Amino acid sequence: MVKIAVLGFGVVGSGTVEAFDRNSAIIAQNAGHDIQVKYILDIRDFPDSPYNNLLTGDFEKIVSDPDVAVVVETIGGVGPAFDYTKRCLSAGKSVVTSNKELVAAHGYELLEMASANGVNYLFEASVGGGIPIIRPIAQCIAANQINEIYGIVNGTTNYILTEMVKNGAEFSDALADAQRKGYAEADPSADIDGHDACRKICILASLAFGKHIYPEYASHEGIRGISSNDVHFAGELGYKIKLVARARVLGDIPAVYVAPHLISHDNLLAGVDGVMNAVVVRGNIVGDLMFYGAGAGKMPTASAVAADVIDAVKHMKLRKLIGWEEGGEDSVADHMLLESAWYIRTDASREKISHEFGEVIFSGSIGSECAFKTTFMSGRKVQELLERGISALSLFRVLGDH
Amino acid sequence: MVKIAVLGFGVVGSGTVEAFDRNSAIIAQNAGHDIQVKYILDIRDFPDSPYNNLLTGDFEKIVSDPDVAVVVETIGGVGPAFDYTKRCLSAGKSVVTSNKELVAAHGYELLEMASANGVNYLFEASVGGGIPIIRPIAQCIAANQINEIYGIVNGTTNYILTEMVKNGAEFSDALADAQRKGYAEADPSADIDGHDACRKICILASLAFGKHIYPEYASHEGIRGISSNDVHFAGELGYKIKLVARARVLGDIPAVYVAPHLISHDNLLAGVDGVMNAVVVRGNIVGDLMFYGAGAGKMPTASAVAADVIDAVKHMKLRKLIGWEEGGEDSVADHMLLESAWYIRTDASREKISHEFGEVIFSGSIGSECAFKTTFMSGRKVQELLERGISALSLFRVLGDH
Repeated sequence: MVKIAVLGFGVVGSGTVEAFDRNSAIIAQNAGHDIQVKYILDIRDFPDSPYNNLLTGDFEKIVSDPDVAVVVETIGGVGPAFDYTKRCLSAGKSVVTSNKELVAAHGYELLEMASANGVNYLFEASVGGGIPIIRPIAQCIAANQINEIYGIVNGTTNYILTEMVKNGAEFSDALADAQRKGYAEADPSADIDGHDACRKICILASLAFGKHIYPEYASHEGIRGISSNDVHFAGELGYKIKLVARARVLGDIPAVYVAPHLISHDNLLAGVDGVMNAVVVRGNIVGDLMFYGAGAGKMPTASAVAADVIDAVKHMKLRKLIGWEEGGEDSVADHMLLESAWYIRTDASREKISHEFGEVIFSGSIGSECAFKTTFMSGRKVQELLERGISALSLFRVLGDH
Repeated sequence: MVKIAVLGFGVVGSGTVEAFDRNSAIIAQNAGHDIQVKYILDIRDFPDSPYNNLLTGDFEKIVSDPDVAVVVETIGGVGPAFDYTKRCLSAGKSVVTSNKELVAAHGYELLEMASANGVNYLFEASVGGGIPIIRPIAQCIAANQINEIYGIVNGTTNYILTEMVKNGAEFSDALADAQRKGYAEADPSADIDGHDACRKICILASLAFGKHIYPEYASHEGIRGISSNDVHFAGELGYKIKLVARARVLGDIPAVYVAPHLISHDNLLAGVDGVMNAVVVRGNIVGDLMFYGAGAGKMPTASAVAADVIDAVKHMKLRKLIGWEEGGEDSVADHMLLESAWYIRTDASREKISHEFGEVIFSGSIGSECAFKTTFMSGRKVQELLERGISALSLFRVLGDH
């Protein structure tokens, strides 16, 4: 019998407790041990919860209990979660987390600390909710040099964009709808401005490329600037607009950024709609793999947390070789050097556009606006051409190498 | 430094040797040891190969060399491959294989033998080529009760069906084209009659449901009977035809079968074209996950083999908890009890069809033929209704629960 503690009884924490309850037999079989939740840490009281008897507000009781082998941290954020994680690792307990903010900000330090204490710090649930992505990158394609990772890793923005495409809605209306349905928070900024997606791609890039990529050195752009005209023009040109998080090797280091992209209808990723997520990983021998599933939500995320707990229990005496080196500003390449085709919405004349950009593909017009797709060029080059007197109302990459 | 041997220098074997050569640094980093191919077993000579010096025709040299910790079996088939695998496991060497025929026929016995000898028998490359699917099922969703697995696991048939949809070609012409391009063998029966896909779904079902599913107790139907009229009618009804391998729990045990299915255009699986493969796994807490990539080919399959070798090296002193119990005829449910909507092509009159099947959705007609989609019912029920005087020229399931 292995005892665990769950820190934070919010959506993911309560889902995790429920998963260990509901699937206890299969979990025991796969872990080789019965696993039991001994404590749930939360300062709130949940009198109606069947797990109320496990609740405690006293972290010291958990960290000092030698019975507790694995601690699940689902508090979120960098405050107490960071402190508690360090204390648990120092006390020789493995820690499993769904906290992308903490892993993105302090993953290197926490992985080092886990290593020094002979325990594991596992974070499958921090990216892609229930989709297996950390373990596949670390293990399943461990024989590959990874050249690129990109995907749809934020369900809120994908829901909003899917609604904009389906109904021709404006961003503000689609956001209000997402908020009504509980897919977007009252303060939606972390999702719609790309912070959340940026943390996730930084975690994947750290793992794939071997150096910690801090979010402050990556670039992120959200979806507030996407208009219904963009959706319409993109459709005319054969594309859907999606918020893509991407890390791509440029020389020796990756460019890492989040931005809206046009995705061709014949790319599988264009079919990833609503709150679903998908990540494509490109290895130098395996080619492209795609991992698809529910990128958030109580039980899917709990599934990933529980898988990590099982792994921690199975590896109680063996450290997982998972981690990366310290990184800094110079571990990230400038994404404006990456080449691609570009989509530009503008009210400049077609004559002027053709004069500056040469061969382009035009959409139709709505009022004074039209859009066009450029040939393959770097972001720097696009900006240089735009500075010759074309005002870009939107400027998005077209996904794909050619 | 860990030494390995590769048995069989065919497509996958040579790809594996090449992968260890090309990506030696990243493999060493992820395995925690340098890994070197010491022997390649093949009775043929390859004077132009840079690895000619590693070739030997003498299996005894390999099995008796205490230096060799892991053996890769890419011979295929159940003859010498079975014998060599048993001898290597008995000699305390972990074995990694891409041989789906052997795993499907003798997986239980070989996993037991590996366990008895304290070594690992790993087979990620036996299903889905480079797509991670064995490890995700065994580890990443280990906290889930799996209810269903289905997917496109044979590239040859998917290529042929993709061509039939794209060009309206007849099966025989599309097959000839696939043979010219090297996607189908001179004797294509293993692929197009569904044997290959059946072995693969049996392996996945054994892993997911815990008992060995022998291919002889599963059911398989290939794609020879699909006509261009089927492709046309299916398209009219909003579907693509794909060869689907499927295992779905019915009561306590899975129904396991391979058969053509109609897949709705809005299902991601419908977009899996050409030689690509994809597998959907449905867990009771994570929901649906999809894993997509190159399902065959030299380097993708080598990627999966190499990942297993890395895992075997990392777990040299720890057995992976991977395996299942012995199974038999009573471990498999009758797939004709599974309910679904059905697609039927016939030359019966619409009046007769409506009379027997009640509410159906009709396609248009080509000559005397038309097709229709039934309401949700078991295969048994469909056959009972057909026996009232409707001859089914094609009878396929429509994928989906409703």
